[in-house]
Formats: sequence, structure tokens, C-alpha cells
Amino acid sequence: MRAVDLIRRKRDSGELTPSEIHQLITEYTRGDVPDYQMSAWLMAVVLRGMSRPEIAALTEAMLHSGRVLDFSDLAGRKVDKHSTGGVGDKTSLVIAPIVAAGGLKVPMISGRGLGHSGGTLDKLESIPGFDVNLSLEEFRRVLETCGCALIGQTAEIAPADKKIYALRDVTGTVESPALICASIMSKKLAEGIDALVLDVKTGSGAFMKNIDDAVNLADLLVETGKRMGKKVVALLTDMNQPLGRKAGNAMEVAESIEVLGGGGPADLRELCVELAAWMFLLGERVKTIDDGKKLSLDLIASGQAREKFREIVGLQGGDVGVVDDPHRLAHARQTLDVLSSSDGFISSVQCEQLGVACVVLGGGREKKENKIDPAVGLEFHKRIGDAVERGEPLCTLHYNSDARLAEARQLVETAYLIDPDKPKTFPPLIYQVIGA
Amino acid sequence: MRAVDLIRRKRDSGELTPSEIHQLITEYTRGDVPDYQMSAWLMAVVLRGMSRPEIAALTEAMLHSGRVLDFSDLAGRKVDKHSTGGVGDKTSLVIAPIVAAGGLKVPMISGRGLGHSGGTLDKLESIPGFDVNLSLEEFRRVLETCGCALIGQTAEIAPADKKIYALRDVTGTVESPALICASIMSKKLAEGIDALVLDVKTGSGAFMKNIDDAVNLADLLVETGKRMGKKVVALLTDMNQPLGRKAGNAMEVAESIEVLGGGGPADLRELCVELAAWMFLLGERVKTIDDGKKLSLDLIASGQAREKFREIVGLQGGDVGVVDDPHRLAHARQTLDVLSSSDGFISSVQCEQLGVACVVLGGGREKKENKIDPAVGLEFHKRIGDAVERGEPLCTLHYNSDARLAEARQLVETAYLIDPDKPKTFPPLIYQVIGA
Repeated sequence: MRAVDLIRRKRDSGELTPSEIHQLITEYTRGDVPDYQMSAWLMAVVLRGMSRPEIAALTEAMLHSGRVLDFSDLAGRKVDKHSTGGVGDKTSLVIAPIVAAGGLKVPMISGRGLGHSGGTLDKLESIPGFDVNLSLEEFRRVLETCGCALIGQTAEIAPADKKIYALRDVTGTVESPALICASIMSKKLAEGIDALVLDVKTGSGAFMKNIDDAVNLADLLVETGKRMGKKVVALLTDMNQPLGRKAGNAMEVAESIEVLGGGGPADLRELCVELAAWMFLLGERVKTIDDGKKLSLDLIASGQAREKFREIVGLQGGDVGVVDDPHRLAHARQTLDVLSSSDGFISSVQCEQLGVACVVLGGGREKKENKIDPAVGLEFHKRIGDAVERGEPLCTLHYNSDARLAEARQLVETAYLIDPDKPKTFPPLIYQVIGA
Repeated sequence: MRAVDLIRRKRDSGELTPSEIHQLITEYTRGDVPDYQMSAWLMAVVLRGMSRPEIAALTEAMLHSGRVLDFSDLAGRKVDKHSTGGVGDKTSLVIAPIVAAGGLKVPMISGRGLGHSGGTLDKLESIPGFDVNLSLEEFRRVLETCGCALIGQTAEIAPADKKIYALRDVTGTVESPALICASIMSKKLAEGIDALVLDVKTGSGAFMKNIDDAVNLADLLVETGKRMGKKVVALLTDMNQPLGRKAGNAMEVAESIEVLGGGGPADLRELCVELAAWMFLLGERVKTIDDGKKLSLDLIASGQAREKFREIVGLQGGDVGVVDDPHRLAHARQTLDVLSSSDGFISSVQCEQLGVACVVLGGGREKKENKIDPAVGLEFHKRIGDAVERGEPLCTLHYNSDARLAEARQLVETAYLIDPDKPKTFPPLIYQVIGA
């Protein structure tokens, strides 16, 4: 195999065999195929696409570039959830303890914030002492002890993905369903899980703005997971407005604890219960989705889910006091209300702008080396369809520095579209379930 | 400017401004934009194309990445010819002396063999002592003294092209009219010429097999040259069979000397006279193409063209004795006739295969580091439309080693298609002139 021939074939819309893809990925990971050949191939993939068998082969090659965990000796089915990301999406923090409390194992390898969207690892790190950098041995011990552990991608997990992802980021080759699918699935399948629930977001705050693109990606993810012998479903969910009422790392931890305590915003609670129910169903803990929802709600109501969260925090070195008293989390020193400039109803939200505003305040990274301020964030007072009066607060900014406050404020101000008439339709929370 | 944004824009079929293209090329040449970003951008260009203004900007940026020669203080118009390459294409060796003998200046920066096609520098080097690696100062001196000099691309000429070309070769990004155009024109415009005649080849032995692709490229080349204030025409010429009767470095020098002496094969002579006539016309030495042809024929008949060739050879350190006695050139020790297996007429030739056969015998390079055997080559006995009898020689292989003789023989044997009926149409030598 000469890499240049594989590049040329893909450029001309040809198909690569599984063994060619395997060799390309192996040689790239080893450093025998240089970055400049891989980036040309990736661009050809972005523009020419890949067949389903090619995507499966790519996923498999990336998966087997590193260690594939095996928890088959631990009791209970292993299930996980993955979200494609959005604004205020903190469901992992709620679901993982619920599902572990329900007797399944949740070995969750998560990511950091990317662009305008937050990341589970950054949120967890706003809990003082919480360590997401466990070794795989510690990961296993925590999982065995309490049924759930949450860590970042280690050097041993899918190193091909790590290397390719870094290259895609700087070569304009991120936006490919085939590459996104292989990246997600190679990491998730390395977790040693039996089943996976995917939360594929669509709307103005998602990476897939367009519902058809999201359906296509969901479909790819499900098919690829099934080819690898896993139970997989994908929920296509709305990201035309933030999930819950808060965005920002510590603020999202606080809101997650509210939901685990039986409170919190309805949309967030509903989506968490739905996702947990699918995990229970795929993990064969229940026979129907309704049973799964009931189990989830029971685990919240009984306090078991919240107790499980406390246990995880403790085992991963975090301050368990925050579970009872979220005020122990970092708080921003100042707040600023962004007010409505007119009377009417919220007709739509430029949700990505809200995510960017949070990054601008310091809640995310514009460059890899940026340090996150866990305290800052946004508090949303209005959702699509809500009535609003001139001068009423739409959103409160929580900030520590006014260096870029004006920029954040402007992003938020222009994110809300207000109409005199109440909108006739609202985006549903869940559009459809794929692969069930 | 962030390189990744320019990559993304081209990926999404957008257009780059001249200053963006200039910055990208400058930073790449300097090493500030890495190979892996350039190769992703090049692949996006291959698949999305470039607008005419983008191609002009790219050409200009590559041209100005190095030294642009200025011969305006030397008397006489400076004209050059560039061919896109083929099998047996040795016109530069004939034309340069004719045009210099006619009073114009020909500052010719040439290339080496590429793939199945030969290169002027390799041919010249088969003349013992001939030095194609003159410094730009020596180049100028030879040009001033005799009106013509032939060298290779130095490090000072279009370094961006040199670097990008090497990258394209290994990243499957060669086949783009935009990139081919910028590569050719940046080098040719660096020669300090007033006018350029392009010989764009099409057919089974050309890089552009398809006539529409060749027309498109010719059109691009002409427009780009004119935008830069040069007089440019492109002749679209046939490469469905070798040009002349010989391929191979020393053999082509010998055939060129035949033409300069008033003999040689008709097709080669005719094309040389036509190309030289266009150079005389664009160089304002004559008023009509017919006058240009007459002048060229006169310069051959009077011996002045041949004398000019002797002068160039001498000034560039070559053995001038070969001009009178081509037997002083290297000769292969052995020959093998490839015979026709049937009676009939030559209906078509897989011309590229003939070029590859010559490379296989050692007349070209399969890898950069290969050394060329100047003596080997092919002698063609039949052209399209010629009658042939079973057992009659189609082609004679001149070789020094039989290591790969069988392979070369097989390539030649299968290159000729013989039909019982005489073909009704023949490929013309010149299809059309573009830009006149």
C-alpha cells in the first residue's frame, strides 16, 4: 500500500477496503504516514464521503489503535450515553448516578468543552478536588465500587482518534459525518460497554443545525455500533435553546444536583429521565421505556441517585459537601441582567451565540491553552414561547472580569428574537428515536 | 488570517481574495503554514476548483516567492515555449536554436522527465559535458552571448512552486488544472519573457487524455499569462502517438540534430516550424505566421539554426562534436525488434505505454533517485494509418540491460492496435490555436 494511492482513490470517489483503511490508520498512528498525507486523505473524505463499510472499518481501526477495556467480569450490564453537545447540556452528570443507582455499570469516558458547547470533564472539575484523570486501573476500581466512573480520554484509549482529531481541528476536516461517527464510536466502544444511548442534538445550538444532517449522523452512529455487536439507540433531541436554565461549569453542576434532588427545570429533568430509561432498557434492567422512566423517577425520589452522585464525587477525590450545599461551588463575583428591548414572545433563540457568550466570559476555551473560570456562566429566564415585557430580564450573566463583558452581552442581546405574536409551534424536546 | 479558515472556505466552495492567497503561499514557503494544512487546502482546491482571479493570484504569489529575472536591458524580445509533455517530444531542442538564430532571445528554464514523459534537461545531459545547472549569472551570460540558454529550475526561481510541487506529488493533488496552471506559469513568468508559446498536448500519451480537459487547461494558461501582461498563445497538439521516430534521451538529441540539419521526420519538423513561427510572431520578428514559418525554414536551410545549436552546446560546456557526428552520443549495446502479430493497419497507439517502456529500459526515472541511461530508447517504425504486415517491426528497443526487457517488450507489443481496415480518420498534428 502506498498512502498516495489511497488518497487518490478517495479523491476520485473510490472505496477503500477494510484492510487498506486499517493499514492507513495503523501506519499513521505509528508515524509512518505523515500528517500531510493524512490531512489530504481527510479532506478527500470530507468532500467525497465514505460508504457504511468504510466507516465501520475506520471505526474499528481507530478503536483497535489502543486499549479496549473489558469489564465483562464485573456484575451488571455496562451502558453509556454520549451527546453530540450543545448549550447547557449537563445530562451526563444526572444520568450516570441514576443508572448506576439502578444497578447497571456506567464506565463513562467524556470530553472537554468544544467550541460553543460545554464538556462533562470541565463541569466535573468545578467540584473542588474532583479528579477526571484517573488511570485505567483507578477507573476500573471506582466503577467496581460504585457502578460509575467518569474520566477523560487517556493516551491508551483510541490514540488514532486523538491524533486524527487534533489534525482535523487545524485542517478544516471536522465536519464529516463519517469522521465524526468514527471518532465518537471508537472512543465509546473502547469503554467495554454492552449498550450505548446516543443523544444527537439538532438546532441552532447544536453542531448539526439541520435536522436531516442530524438524522443522517444518528443513523450512521447506530448502524456502526450495531455492526460492532452493541445495542445502540439514538435520540434526536432539540438544541434550538439551552437545556435547563443554566450554562457554565459550576452553575451546571448545581443545576444537576437540583435535578438529582427531585427539582430543577422540567426540560432537563424530562430529558434525563428519558435517556436514563433507554439506558435501563438497553441494559436489560427493565422491559419497557415506561418502566425505565418510573425506575429513574423512583431513584430520584428515594434520594438514591443523589446519594450515588455523592459516592462518585467522593471516590474521585471531590468535595462531597457540594452535593448538600452547592454554594460551596465557585460563584462569580458579579452579575448583569440582559433585558428585553420589546414586548412580545420569544420566537427563536440563536442558541450557539449563548454558548459563545459563555466562552467569552471565560467559561470555555477559545484556544487549547486557555484556563477555564468555573464560576462564570449564564442563567436563562425565558424559553421559546414565553411572554416577555420590555425591560424584563432575558438572561443573567455571571462574570468575574468585565474585560469582554460587552461582547458577551451583545451576543446574548442579539440571540433572542421577540415577536409580537405568540409562536404557534414550539420545538419538541425529543424529535425521534432511531434504532429502537 | 488563520490557515484553517482559508481551508474551510475553499472546502465549502468559497473564493479566497488575492491577498489571502498571497499570505497563504508566503507563509507556507516560509514554513509558517505546515505541510498538513497546505495539503488539505490543495485537496480542497482539486475537488472544488479555483476561479480565474484565484488562479491568477496563486500564480502571482508563487512567481513572487522567488527571483523574477529581468532581461529588459538585453536587445531583442524574450520568448519561450512550454510543452505539457509527451512521448518523443523534443521540440525545445530544435526550436530554441531556430528562434535564437532568428534574433530573439530564448531564456529557457526546463524540467526533467516526469512519469512516462521525457524532459529537456535529461535529453541535453546526454550530450557529454552539457551543463544545465548554470547559475542565474551564467544563464544570463550565455543568453546574452548567443541568444539562448537552457537550464533547470534553480532554488531562486519560484521556490513556492518547488515546495508545493513536491507536496502535491505525494498527496494525490497533482491533477488540478488550477494548480497545474499556477505551477507552469509561475516558473515561465520568472524567466523575464515578453511572450510565451504553449504546446498543450492531448491524447493517449499526454497527461490530458481528454481534449476538453486540454482545451480547458490551455485556456487557463493563456488567460493567466495575459493577465500578467504577457503575449501568450497555446497550440493544442496531438499526443496519440509519439512525436517523431525516436524516444530516449540521446536518440532524441540525434533526431533533433537531424531536423536542424533539414531532415528528420515530417511530423516533428512541421510542429517545430509551427511553434517557432508563433514565437517569431509573438516576439514581433514577423508579421504573419506564414512569414514565421518561412523564416524558420530559411534558418534551417541556411544552416544557421544548426550553427546556433552548436554555439549553445559549446557555451554550456557540451561536446560540440556531436552536432556534426551524432554517433559520438551514447549508443545502446543491443537492439530488439518488436514485430507485428498480424496484417492490417495501425488504428491506434497506447502512447503512454510506449513512454513507460522507455522508462522501464532506464530512459526515465521511476523514483527521484534513479539514474538515467542516456543511450536507451525506442525507435518507432509505424504511425497511425500505416499498413503493416505480420512479422514486420513496429518498434525497435535500444537497451543495455535485459533485466526488464520482457516488461518493456510487452508494453510495446500491447501498445499497438492493428485493424484489418485502414482507419478513415487520423489525428491531426495540431487541433487548434487558443488565444491568437
